[in-house]
Amino acid sequence: MIQIAVIGYGTVGSGVVEVIGRNHDEISKKAGEEIYVKYILDLRDFPGDPYEDRVIHDVAAIMEDPEIKIICETMGGIRPAYDFTKQALLQGKSVCTSNKELVATHGPELIRIATENKCNYLFEASVGGGIPIIRPLNYSLTAEKIDSIVGILNGTTNFILSKMETEGADFAEVLKEAQDNGFAERNPEADVEGHDACRKIAILSSLMTGKNVRYEDIYTEGITGITAVDFRYAKSMDMTIKLLAVSVMLADRLYAYVAPFMIGRDHPLYFVHDVFNAVYVHGNMLGDSMYYGRGAGKLPTASAVVSDVVDCARHLGKTIMCFWDSENVQLAPVDERIGRFFVRVAASAGVSKRAAERFGDITVISPQAEDEFAFLCGPVSEAEFAAKAAGLDGLISRIRLN
Amino acid sequence: MIQIAVIGYGTVGSGVVEVIGRNHDEISKKAGEEIYVKYILDLRDFPGDPYEDRVIHDVAAIMEDPEIKIICETMGGIRPAYDFTKQALLQGKSVCTSNKELVATHGPELIRIATENKCNYLFEASVGGGIPIIRPLNYSLTAEKIDSIVGILNGTTNFILSKMETEGADFAEVLKEAQDNGFAERNPEADVEGHDACRKIAILSSLMTGKNVRYEDIYTEGITGITAVDFRYAKSMDMTIKLLAVSVMLADRLYAYVAPFMIGRDHPLYFVHDVFNAVYVHGNMLGDSMYYGRGAGKLPTASAVVSDVVDCARHLGKTIMCFWDSENVQLAPVDERIGRFFVRVAASAGVSKRAAERFGDITVISPQAEDEFAFLCGPVSEAEFAAKAAGLDGLISRIRLN
Repeated sequence: MIQIAVIGYGTVGSGVVEVIGRNHDEISKKAGEEIYVKYILDLRDFPGDPYEDRVIHDVAAIMEDPEIKIICETMGGIRPAYDFTKQALLQGKSVCTSNKELVATHGPELIRIATENKCNYLFEASVGGGIPIIRPLNYSLTAEKIDSIVGILNGTTNFILSKMETEGADFAEVLKEAQDNGFAERNPEADVEGHDACRKIAILSSLMTGKNVRYEDIYTEGITGITAVDFRYAKSMDMTIKLLAVSVMLADRLYAYVAPFMIGRDHPLYFVHDVFNAVYVHGNMLGDSMYYGRGAGKLPTASAVVSDVVDCARHLGKTIMCFWDSENVQLAPVDERIGRFFVRVAASAGVSKRAAERFGDITVISPQAEDEFAFLCGPVSEAEFAAKAAGLDGLISRIRLN
Repeated sequence: MIQIAVIGYGTVGSGVVEVIGRNHDEISKKAGEEIYVKYILDLRDFPGDPYEDRVIHDVAAIMEDPEIKIICETMGGIRPAYDFTKQALLQGKSVCTSNKELVATHGPELIRIATENKCNYLFEASVGGGIPIIRPLNYSLTAEKIDSIVGILNGTTNFILSKMETEGADFAEVLKEAQDNGFAERNPEADVEGHDACRKIAILSSLMTGKNVRYEDIYTEGITGITAVDFRYAKSMDMTIKLLAVSVMLADRLYAYVAPFMIGRDHPLYFVHDVFNAVYVHGNMLGDSMYYGRGAGKLPTASAVVSDVVDCARHLGKTIMCFWDSENVQLAPVDERIGRFFVRVAASAGVSKRAAERFGDITVISPQAEDEFAFLCGPVSEAEFAAKAAGLDGLISRIRLN
């Protein structure tokens, strides 16, 4: 029997306990031994909960118990999760986490401590919820030079954008509906401003390069500026709008950014709707591959945490290889990214001529709102586009094209 | 340095050598040691080949060389691959293979021999080419009860069906084109009759159940009967036709079959075109997930073989857990499968009434060919459908609905 502790008995933590309970036999078989939840750490009590008797309030009981070999950290946030994780790893206890913020911020240090103490710090659940993506990158695509990762990594924003597309509604309206239905947080900033996706692509970029990609260095733009009219334009071009998290290696320089993009039907991510997530990976031998599934939710995320527990159980006393050094990657400035843009400006005499003068070859798009002129331009660098767009009278908005 | 041998220097075997050469540094890093191809076994000589000096004709040199720890079996077919594999495993040499026929036929025995000899028999490349699917099933979805797997597992048939859809052409015509372009074999039976997909779903079903699913027990129907008119009907219903390989657990009984199905836009497999493959997996906690990519081709398949080599290198002297017992699974009779059907019959007076009398509630579909009557019926068991359809005058064809 392998005894474990769950720290943080919120949505994911209670999911972990539920998954271990409901799939007890399968999990024990896969782990090679029975997995038993000995402690659940939380500040609160849970009277009436079937696991009420396992709930404790002092982390010391876990840290001091030599029988505890594996800890599930499902608290979220940096503190005190960071301290607990470090303390556990220093004692040779493996930690499995869904905490993307902590992984993105202290990943290399915690992985190093795990290695030094012959245990593991695993984080399958930190990206893509239940979609296996960390393990495929670390264990499966080992014969590849991975040169790009493009993901829809946030369920809330994908749900909102899908709703805006199908209902023709505006952002604020759909956000409110999503909040009322529990698909978006009361404070939605981390999702809708792209911060959540940013942390996740930082983790994937680090695994792709084997070095550390700081999330603070990643250009991040959310979806709050996207409107129903933008979707009408997208539809008229047989495209849709998705919040993409991108990490791409071009001429040995890494570009990483999060932003809404228009994408066409020829892209597999076009078809990723609602709360689903997908990660599109390109390797130099394999070409394209994609990993798709529920990117959030109690049980899917918990299932990923438990798959890490199984992996730790199979490797007690041994560190599984993971390449994520502390050396920071110098990202290419996003200003130098080359791409195409969709642009809306206020209609006025000669606007077409002025746009063409600035951007060269433009493709005019039929207006989907009164008194507007819309066009596609590029390829052009972000910096050049910004400079030229700044001088364009009546600029309404611009969206990047994939 | 870890020395390996490649047996069979055809498409995949030469791909393995190429991948190891081109991604040498990445692979050595991931494996923890340099991977060196010491021998290439083939009946032929390869004058002028950069690896000409490694080519040998006698397998004994490999078997008797204690430095060889890992063998890539890329010969295909049962004999002599089976004998070579067994001999290698008995000597504690791990074997990585792309040989789906051998894996489907002798998988449990070879896995057992590997376990007994503290080495590994790995077969990531046997299903889905370069798509990581075996490892996700064995290492990632370990907290799940997997209750269904639905795959597009054959690139040739998916290419043919995609072409038939976009060009409105008939099967024979597209097959010829595919053969001329090298996308289909001169003898295409293994692909177009579904045998290849059958072996692959047998492997996936075995991993799903942990027991042995015999490919001979799987009901298999190919795509040779699918016509351009069928695609016109599919299109009129906003559907397409795909060769699906299915393994689904219903009330503790496993149904497994390969057949063309009509599927709608709401199914992620709808969007899997051309030579791409995808595997759609449902687990009781995670819900749906999908793995998508190039299901065939020299480098993608070779990349999967090499990922197995890396895994073997990381686990020298230790067997990686794999659950595939020799106990045969008793499949539920396909006759008892319940589903819906699309049916075409010759138009005649009262045909609508007769169809409704037999099948109950039917949905009439606008005819897409002269003198035809078409409808959807079910849910109904395969046996009941077959009995009723047999008595229906002028039956032209039927296709299952997903």
